[in-house]
Amino acid sequence: MALRPRRLKWRFAWAITAAVEASISGFLELLPEQELVQQHLIAAVRRQFELYGFAPLQTRSVERVEDLLNQGDTDKEIYGLHRLAEPEAQGATKLALHYDLTVPFARYVREHQHQLVFPFRRYQVQPAWRGERPQLGRYREFIQADADVIGRDELPVEHDAEMVSMLGQTLAGLPVPPVRLMINNRKLLEGFYLGLGITKVTETLRIVDKLPKLGEGGVHEALSKTGLSASQVERCLAVSQLESHESGHLREQIQSLGVQHELLTQGLDEVCIVLDRSAADLPGQVVAALHIARGFDYYTGTVVEGVLRDHPNLGSICSGGRYDNLASTKRALPGMGVSIGITRLMSFLLHLNLLLPRRKTPAQVFVILHSEEQRGLSIDVARSLRQRGIGCLLSSAARAYGKQIQQAERLGIDYVWFPAQGDKPHTVKDLATGEQSEAALQSWQPDAERLDLGRAVHRSTT
Amino acid sequence: MALRPRRLKWRFAWAITAAVEASISGFLELLPEQELVQQHLIAAVRRQFELYGFAPLQTRSVERVEDLLNQGDTDKEIYGLHRLAEPEAQGATKLALHYDLTVPFARYVREHQHQLVFPFRRYQVQPAWRGERPQLGRYREFIQADADVIGRDELPVEHDAEMVSMLGQTLAGLPVPPVRLMINNRKLLEGFYLGLGITKVTETLRIVDKLPKLGEGGVHEALSKTGLSASQVERCLAVSQLESHESGHLREQIQSLGVQHELLTQGLDEVCIVLDRSAADLPGQVVAALHIARGFDYYTGTVVEGVLRDHPNLGSICSGGRYDNLASTKRALPGMGVSIGITRLMSFLLHLNLLLPRRKTPAQVFVILHSEEQRGLSIDVARSLRQRGIGCLLSSAARAYGKQIQQAERLGIDYVWFPAQGDKPHTVKDLATGEQSEAALQSWQPDAERLDLGRAVHRSTT
Repeated sequence: MALRPRRLKWRFAWAITAAVEASISGFLELLPEQELVQQHLIAAVRRQFELYGFAPLQTRSVERVEDLLNQGDTDKEIYGLHRLAEPEAQGATKLALHYDLTVPFARYVREHQHQLVFPFRRYQVQPAWRGERPQLGRYREFIQADADVIGRDELPVEHDAEMVSMLGQTLAGLPVPPVRLMINNRKLLEGFYLGLGITKVTETLRIVDKLPKLGEGGVHEALSKTGLSASQVERCLAVSQLESHESGHLREQIQSLGVQHELLTQGLDEVCIVLDRSAADLPGQVVAALHIARGFDYYTGTVVEGVLRDHPNLGSICSGGRYDNLASTKRALPGMGVSIGITRLMSFLLHLNLLLPRRKTPAQVFVILHSEEQRGLSIDVARSLRQRGIGCLLSSAARAYGKQIQQAERLGIDYVWFPAQGDKPHTVKDLATGEQSEAALQSWQPDAERLDLGRAVHRSTT
Repeated sequence: MALRPRRLKWRFAWAITAAVEASISGFLELLPEQELVQQHLIAAVRRQFELYGFAPLQTRSVERVEDLLNQGDTDKEIYGLHRLAEPEAQGATKLALHYDLTVPFARYVREHQHQLVFPFRRYQVQPAWRGERPQLGRYREFIQADADVIGRDELPVEHDAEMVSMLGQTLAGLPVPPVRLMINNRKLLEGFYLGLGITKVTETLRIVDKLPKLGEGGVHEALSKTGLSASQVERCLAVSQLESHESGHLREQIQSLGVQHELLTQGLDEVCIVLDRSAADLPGQVVAALHIARGFDYYTGTVVEGVLRDHPNLGSICSGGRYDNLASTKRALPGMGVSIGITRLMSFLLHLNLLLPRRKTPAQVFVILHSEEQRGLSIDVARSLRQRGIGCLLSSAARAYGKQIQQAERLGIDYVWFPAQGDKPHTVKDLATGEQSEAALQSWQPDAERLDLGRAVHRSTT
């Protein structure tokens, strides 16, 4: 059924006026029509994570300051808490808002390890807070969707492969532009550096991770400053520029650089397993890109990062990695996690003008009020529809029909229900076609396709 | 299909060991099997709110301190924020965590009123924070599910009735013990007090609201202390003790007290509309209970409060009311909202031992690994099941079958899948019955009833 062009035009204009304004810098707030899309994305992510057997979890928003600072991420601009009623206690801040979901999760697993079944899989969709300077895609409050699996004593690399596959599958199922997942392995890079005789491994990693930002020249300069020889710098750059979709090809490329180290071999084997396994599920979507190192100190093996394939400069929309020691106590609790930046993804969709929401309500039907005295008729219709799982909204006042229909149009509701009165049967007006026809209260159904919120996101051609 | 008694017993024992421990006082964290139930409750609430056309919304967790203090609720123990990186800025706290969802929502509507369609309906499921002394049902971080409707210029009392109906319907649909909803109207009480010649209306309201806590004697004493005459105190108590399920009966009772005031008449009319309308949807569940006043200053008409019918002393699990001025700017933006305390409800279920969760994962099927070399077979099975929307978990290691089955049992998964190998077909073992039978990968379905998480909450007989 084709939409009338006039209406279509008007609807697009409406969508574009719906801009986002933040009244406190760095804190994004969406309009209802945008939030409906965000909830659609979150629901799709949750569904996929649950299909892989990840249980929902929520940790408290608040951690002990020492537990957050322990991770050595003092640059995370942590927000401390103090009670306004106790201003004198501000000096001794003990509690703070978490800046990610991984550190609180590791703390949760340490605390509850005797009540959990390992390998323990959980996902978590919650906000995190960082007092950073706001910029495109970077907010002071942002929603993350994290999934992690933590093993007891051991966690075979097969889990890394499953996590990367799940991440790719999840993103491929969202109504967003194509995503390119880049994987690497810390052991591969560290082994390569050690094989080259480089001792400042962590520092080298951090610099190399900035390759897309600094460019080849910038990285060259930064590495040289750390005291590396020209030949070391050259080979660090060479390995970081390797990319491959195929494990055999990747092995050849590494070999051609002529560096050998046990850790390098181990890391390369792991990357190849992850690459091969995920390529089966996600042909062409996953690439080994050896410049990926991820900033966090706690990663010890696989690392992964994803960007919108056609907009790589916007930055990553998801990331993750293997951490063998973050949750460990006396007993080893190695983990592997991935994280999707929901707020970041939403802000990119808004920035790229890909978000074209029309509905401002989850209601599918707008029920007309004939008159204030006949309100009971409309309430009965609404009750019946809701009992059948069809969301509806009662007109707020018994104004002229035209005014009431306008209300439905402004909300983006397609179906307007005129309750039966006297001899007249129930009728439904379809605002997209303009047709009005008789309807049976017990069996009428809306067009399911029109309700799909995923269609509110423009999918670029792949 | 009956469960074997032996297994049943073991499962209950398992549920009971799953206790909650809070490592920071006042911050509740659930175990995965409990969180699954909480998510089930939240999803049911969201579904019901959406059936009534309420759009999802999230406001930022952070408000300007002055916007929070404006509401005169300085006793709310607000948490101020400061960046750890800027300790010197602590003295001038500008941002704080919200202590409820109503005040941020009113601010949101004021800010975005030109982008919203009125009457504007939204719901919001988010945490709020209060640095109060923790006690049963009272946590420093707690999740609320709020629904509000805000009109422009006016909001007929019919909306109050719809909100109370929706609240009752929502609670009746949850797998929790029966809820008793008590309604009243601020105008009724204020009009009654004014008709009695009482001028300290707000103070009187606050004291009367504590009737269940202080008892008749306590309220008598407190009212007398404010300077009320013996006859005034008596009639304040008399009106507060009125209860009625039926509007005609309520009118008679009020009349018998012989007090007259325009505001009293208006409030009584409003209570009667709300009572009559909601009684149609929720027979016997809603009662006009005239001691209900609600502590917040911003309520101006209808107020509502709900308790678990058989455990009223635990305190309210939901509440709400009409606020004509909270969101208003130069233009009147009257609102009516209701709020369900999700964390409070969960903590009551835990306290009453009504939560008997068994599943620790959303996965419905546990896929066996025959051997490490045959991992591909198991991955293929998992992929197929997931594509059909059946959640599954891959065994983490190719150990003895008994060990793998034990893993499924510990997670509360009923179905164990043995992938086809060689001549042998796919088989599924049902751990509840012990039966193992051939299964078709493309058509096998789990028993839907066993997946209903609502069954993890013990429903007391009504």
